[in-house]
Amino acid sequence: MTVYFLSDFGTADVFAGVVRAVLVRRAPGVRVVDLAHDLPPGDLRHAALQLYAAVPHLAEGGVVLAVVDPGVGSDRRALAVRGERLWYVLPDNGLLTLAAELDPPRAAWVLEPRRFAPGPVSPTFHGRDLFAPAAAHLALGQPPDALGPRLDVGELVRLPLATAAGREGEVIAFDRFGNAISNLRPSQRPEAVHLAGRRIPFRTTFADVPEGEAVAYLGSSGLVEIAIRGGSLREKFKLFEGAAVSLHGPEEEPPPLELD
Amino acid sequence: MTVYFLSDFGTADVFAGVVRAVLVRRAPGVRVVDLAHDLPPGDLRHAALQLYAAVPHLAEGGVVLAVVDPGVGSDRRALAVRGERLWYVLPDNGLLTLAAELDPPRAAWVLEPRRFAPGPVSPTFHGRDLFAPAAAHLALGQPPDALGPRLDVGELVRLPLATAAGREGEVIAFDRFGNAISNLRPSQRPEAVHLAGRRIPFRTTFADVPEGEAVAYLGSSGLVEIAIRGGSLREKFKLFEGAAVSLHGPEEEPPPLELD
Amino acid sequence: MTVYFLSDFGTADVFAGVVRAVLVRRAPGVRVVDLAHDLPPGDLRHAALQLYAAVPHLAEGGVVLAVVDPGVGSDRRALAVRGERLWYVLPDNGLLTLAAELDPPRAAWVLEPRRFAPGPVSPTFHGRDLFAPAAAHLALGQPPDALGPRLDVGELVRLPLATAAGREGEVIAFDRFGNAISNLRPSQRPEAVHLAGRRIPFRTTFADVPEGEAVAYLGSSGLVEIAIRGGSLREKFKLFEGAAVSLHGPEEEPPPLELD
Repeated sequence: MTVYFLSDFGTADVFAGVVRAVLVRRAPGVRVVDLAHDLPPGDLRHAALQLYAAVPHLAEGGVVLAVVDPGVGSDRRALAVRGERLWYVLPDNGLLTLAAELDPPRAAWVLEPRRFAPGPVSPTFHGRDLFAPAAAHLALGQPPDALGPRLDVGELVRLPLATAAGREGEVIAFDRFGNAISNLRPSQRPEAVHLAGRRIPFRTTFADVPEGEAVAYLGSSGLVEIAIRGGSLREKFKLFEGAAVSLHGPEEEPPPLELD
Repeated sequence: MTVYFLSDFGTADVFAGVVRAVLVRRAPGVRVVDLAHDLPPGDLRHAALQLYAAVPHLAEGGVVLAVVDPGVGSDRRALAVRGERLWYVLPDNGLLTLAAELDPPRAAWVLEPRRFAPGPVSPTFHGRDLFAPAAAHLALGQPPDALGPRLDVGELVRLPLATAAGREGEVIAFDRFGNAISNLRPSQRPEAVHLAGRRIPFRTTFADVPEGEAVAYLGSSGLVEIAIRGGSLREKFKLFEGAAVSLHGPEEEPPPLELD
Repeated sequence: MTVYFLSDFGTADVFAGVVRAVLVRRAPGVRVVDLAHDLPPGDLRHAALQLYAAVPHLAEGGVVLAVVDPGVGSDRRALAVRGERLWYVLPDNGLLTLAAELDPPRAAWVLEPRRFAPGPVSPTFHGRDLFAPAAAHLALGQPPDALGPRLDVGELVRLPLATAAGREGEVIAFDRFGNAISNLRPSQRPEAVHLAGRRIPFRTTFADVPEGEAVAYLGSSGLVEIAIRGGSLREKFKLFEGAAVSLHGPEEEPPPLELD
């Protein structure tokens, strides 16, 4: 069995390492695969997108331990969720919003640590004292009902975030290179993308335009991305998340640039 | 057997990766668990605190390989240390000072690489040529006396650093969010903490105060921490390590702010 | 069997994590050892040097998966290469230039994903859809001829980069501390190094000079390095890659500083 571990703990402190240590101590035969730990701290939209990118490539039956948890210590719920293909152990803060499109939740449990995690639970480190023991429990094949009471999957917290099959969408995140990732899943190949008052050609990859030029393409998660080859679109266009993105055919003009 | 690996090698070069490669080549059946590799370079206090945070969660009998070694190539000793619960392989520079409070050293050996590591030892990369082979040796269950001569544990180098059960202490480190970590282990719950001339309420977690406000709480390692919710205490208070911290009851006034 | 994984994917996104997931899903019994993932993005010289530093320490027969690939999506070839000691799966962009000095290529294959990787290949993420499946294939001991057609090893792309046994060389990279790494493999110990118009003493390690002073020494990969103890040579000397470095005996004067 494999536990896939994603967090915003960073690697300048031992937080992620201690979670790994708890996993291997409680479930010695389990393999731990790190997905990433330098996610932008507390950024739920970015983390939700990372889960969306990863989920199709994880082995069926695996346990996803996802700890991006700006509400740690508040009264937000802690969850185990069974999807069609994978298990998830994570705070109930909307992290699953996008991944649920690919692996719909079928059942959920509210973690009650006194049932499965003897010892105190630090109010600032649920990753170590609550989520890691629950993930180890599931990775060992133990029953989810021992973790806590059932929760209707319709009650899971959701972010106001969804992918869209149409032509109108928005920028939902930037990657480390400053490329913009939209929520658009095109049903057919567009000719161009409109963003920030500009018409940007749609190509197969950023290698299809000269250095310094903007290009739109289908990203590796199936979403339209927009980049400047060899540069940062985010900086050059001074873009923010939420900027409108639309897909267009060859004949259409870009919308007029709106100035304040 | 598990080797827990902590360093300040970073991940922009292959230093940490080569140490991992040496471990798995010499001890193929051993599991390597990374604790962290982006520790602040050469910062022994910070590294000592990370070991203190990790040690209670590591499986008994494991080998901790800790390479934060600003004196590499000097005449500082290289050590294997047997604690009550764990083994440690590390430079003799005080890294164990805090962890020794939780897992007292019972025996120590000075590493002599020609005894167990054939081949040259690079004067700038003892992690690869000296510490990793010694950690692999111990993880394979081989006898520590083959590593070098005994050293009395009273002779281990110690940092001027200790946790304190009383009411007067100091800031010993900051985490990546700018939260201050003190050396205070309170025996009972205080009402407030005094720091930098301010009285800061003691709560269960930072979610118990509004955004932007300072709060003290018991951190996940059992030490008092002080944070600004959603901000960096270190920057806002312009704090340095060594700043005085004290614990107070409900009736006490903060000390007058001393100005230079 | 072990797959050694090197990339410039960073750890703020799940790119490296998804590649790991694909490896363990396709080759469940294989061990994955991360070499590094925060290499400077797209910097082929730096990445080539990292492979040179790692290769001597990897277990014979292992598979090196190296994805630093600024040309992803262009018509650069994707390769499997059999060296004398190790396998390599990587883009044909010169990454192997320096490592080939230590582990000469004996045979090469051009990866044709439809032969071994069912499903679409994202034009921006060959690490996931092309290189990881090929590395899993080889790590499972499957025949390289199933990956694609043979390529003569004389046709591999090479960078204009080589180590030198003589006395005249250049700076080829900097590490994270700002230390300069040259391409010089000295056959005997020099007395001094000339760099940027300065004569810098050659010592065993940087601990042999006072804080703030420049020193040259034999680095852990057998190449001459130049550092400022406790500082950044790169910043203090305003150095760039390509700066001339030469080795000198005790009697020789430094060359006159050339001013523009």
